[in-house]
Amino acid sequence: MSVEPSPTGGPNDGGARHVLDDASIEWLRAGGPAGDVVFSSRVRLARNLSGLPFVGRATPEQKQRTLDLVREAIRGTDLPDRWVWLNIHETPASDRGLLVERHLISKQLQKGRGAAIGEDPRAVAFCTPGERVSIMVNEEDHLRLQVIRSGLDLSDAWAQADRIDDSLEAALDFAYAPRLGYLTACPTNIGTGARMSVMLHLPALRMTGDIDKVKRAAGDMGLAVRGFYGEGSEAAGDLYQLSNQTTLGKSEAMILSDLESVIIPRVIEYERIARKTLLTKRTNFLLDQIYRSLGAARHARLMTAEEAMQHLSNIRMGCILGVIKDVEPALLNLLLLLVQPTHLQRVFGKDLDQDARREARALLLRTRLGGV
Amino acid sequence: MSVEPSPTGGPNDGGARHVLDDASIEWLRAGGPAGDVVFSSRVRLARNLSGLPFVGRATPEQKQRTLDLVREAIRGTDLPDRWVWLNIHETPASDRGLLVERHLISKQLQKGRGAAIGEDPRAVAFCTPGERVSIMVNEEDHLRLQVIRSGLDLSDAWAQADRIDDSLEAALDFAYAPRLGYLTACPTNIGTGARMSVMLHLPALRMTGDIDKVKRAAGDMGLAVRGFYGEGSEAAGDLYQLSNQTTLGKSEAMILSDLESVIIPRVIEYERIARKTLLTKRTNFLLDQIYRSLGAARHARLMTAEEAMQHLSNIRMGCILGVIKDVEPALLNLLLLLVQPTHLQRVFGKDLDQDARREARALLLRTRLGGV
Repeated sequence: MSVEPSPTGGPNDGGARHVLDDASIEWLRAGGPAGDVVFSSRVRLARNLSGLPFVGRATPEQKQRTLDLVREAIRGTDLPDRWVWLNIHETPASDRGLLVERHLISKQLQKGRGAAIGEDPRAVAFCTPGERVSIMVNEEDHLRLQVIRSGLDLSDAWAQADRIDDSLEAALDFAYAPRLGYLTACPTNIGTGARMSVMLHLPALRMTGDIDKVKRAAGDMGLAVRGFYGEGSEAAGDLYQLSNQTTLGKSEAMILSDLESVIIPRVIEYERIARKTLLTKRTNFLLDQIYRSLGAARHARLMTAEEAMQHLSNIRMGCILGVIKDVEPALLNLLLLLVQPTHLQRVFGKDLDQDARREARALLLRTRLGGV
Repeated sequence: MSVEPSPTGGPNDGGARHVLDDASIEWLRAGGPAGDVVFSSRVRLARNLSGLPFVGRATPEQKQRTLDLVREAIRGTDLPDRWVWLNIHETPASDRGLLVERHLISKQLQKGRGAAIGEDPRAVAFCTPGERVSIMVNEEDHLRLQVIRSGLDLSDAWAQADRIDDSLEAALDFAYAPRLGYLTACPTNIGTGARMSVMLHLPALRMTGDIDKVKRAAGDMGLAVRGFYGEGSEAAGDLYQLSNQTTLGKSEAMILSDLESVIIPRVIEYERIARKTLLTKRTNFLLDQIYRSLGAARHARLMTAEEAMQHLSNIRMGCILGVIKDVEPALLNLLLLLVQPTHLQRVFGKDLDQDARREARALLLRTRLGGV
């Protein structure tokens, strides 16, 4: 395996830019298991190095030491992919925006801790092509390993996360207590340090009004429900991220089995039934929603990101139900990314203010979806 | 000239039906003077027969007598068109709806006076093709003569109304008092008995928010502002009907000259400036509105009449501004009529409930406007 060196003394944007229009990004690749409803599955492990303070209390020098140790450890893993290493503190703001929109880094890592008194060392490493594996360094924890799969495939994501974790653990000394498990900066992650989440596309449940029931039921089963961009974000584009809340007292295998074999299949079934019901019992209403979205995407001259995501959501359902035949789901997934502010500006190769972005976004949709 | 006899003992719908899809209807024919803003000009004269009570106090026998007298008088006019005579009380409800939507009869004539105790004799006569001239008999007054022209052409409408009025007066004895002029059932029409109105298409003034100023100014100048279907109707499709309020103390020539040479040209100019301003200063906003309407018209599966009229209004402006090049304004005007409930059902050849009408309306727009 190789680690791409980041250029010294300047921004290191190669990793973020060259894959801009890359539909091979794992979570955009339509067609995974249960891909009609499940966008992607994600496993995230939180790890910290023993002998170094948690990120919140570390000095810049200690943070740099963490970076060096992790980077060295990554070199030792045996992944077939090519790793890209980016020092976030040396990465320009626009590129950080790209990484956030691609779900490679969190907003927290984008902005940094203690940014007001200078930016502390922090980084992200990710595998290309596909971006299926990424590691944030010096976010809330020293390491946050993320493995993503298209569709419902937590098992496979978990298996890879576990392998990489073992491989890293061979080179790094992780903070671990026999009775508690892995130690983490926030007590909610202590124990396994594992969070498993699934991104679901639930347009029909929104249309039938049953989405709130699903959210309540998920909460009752100990799951957190978040939007497309994680905690606090709205469920734009009818995308809902369901994840386990518990990391202590339950093995990863139990969490995984609960989610993948019981809870998520139930939600998937619920959404599928809602789609079928709409298609057979409220046909005109459903077709109207789908085609109006296609009409807006093909004709509008100004559009917000939120509206664009809503239309893409409706059109996506139309494709999956066979109503719309001349649009590929993978294209819709890609557009979901490209309509985001930073990607949009990258597509057009320049900085755009809000009005210009609305214009560019509408143009992008028309161009890609055969509009007039 | 000829008067088409109405079949006895049954509904007489020939006159209403055969011109269903007839774009030669005068008020739908785009391209009259100032046709970019003015839909149509209309002159209406109210007349009553002396020696017979006003409609509100007449017996059925007296009403029938009015019908006979008027029909006989129409035979005596020298119009080159073919007259169609319809006894409304013998006309099925759906055909009456057609006549209302075509602006040939009022809702009052459609429903009749004293309809609860049996339907009294009342009728409409109109000229085909074009329907530029029509006469309602036993509406509020014994006679209501209406002459319509495409675009701004009150003078020509007035000239023809005056000729027909003279011609009818040669055969009928109109109630007239030297000091008051023509006597009418409602005192607001007494004097000339004339109402002149212009149907204006003011989408840009709605978009800039200046429409309320125009309405206030028109009121200050003694004009009534009504919607597409007259008194009490909303300004669906951005269509506003401006008409004189005064019929007493002002000659028809003065009213006409005020409207046609001073007031209406001012409103037209105001709308044109608003369109130009939108096109040059708020280009994207304007194009967005126009194209979104085109997109909705070409894609929706369900649509109310009000929404359809709004989209047709925006698309019409788009055509006139040269933004949309593949749609004819005359088609949009025709669709404005065909999306109305009764015409819509006639297009599809069957009775449709509200849901079915919404579906049919959307299908009609897609079919006629090249949708998918």
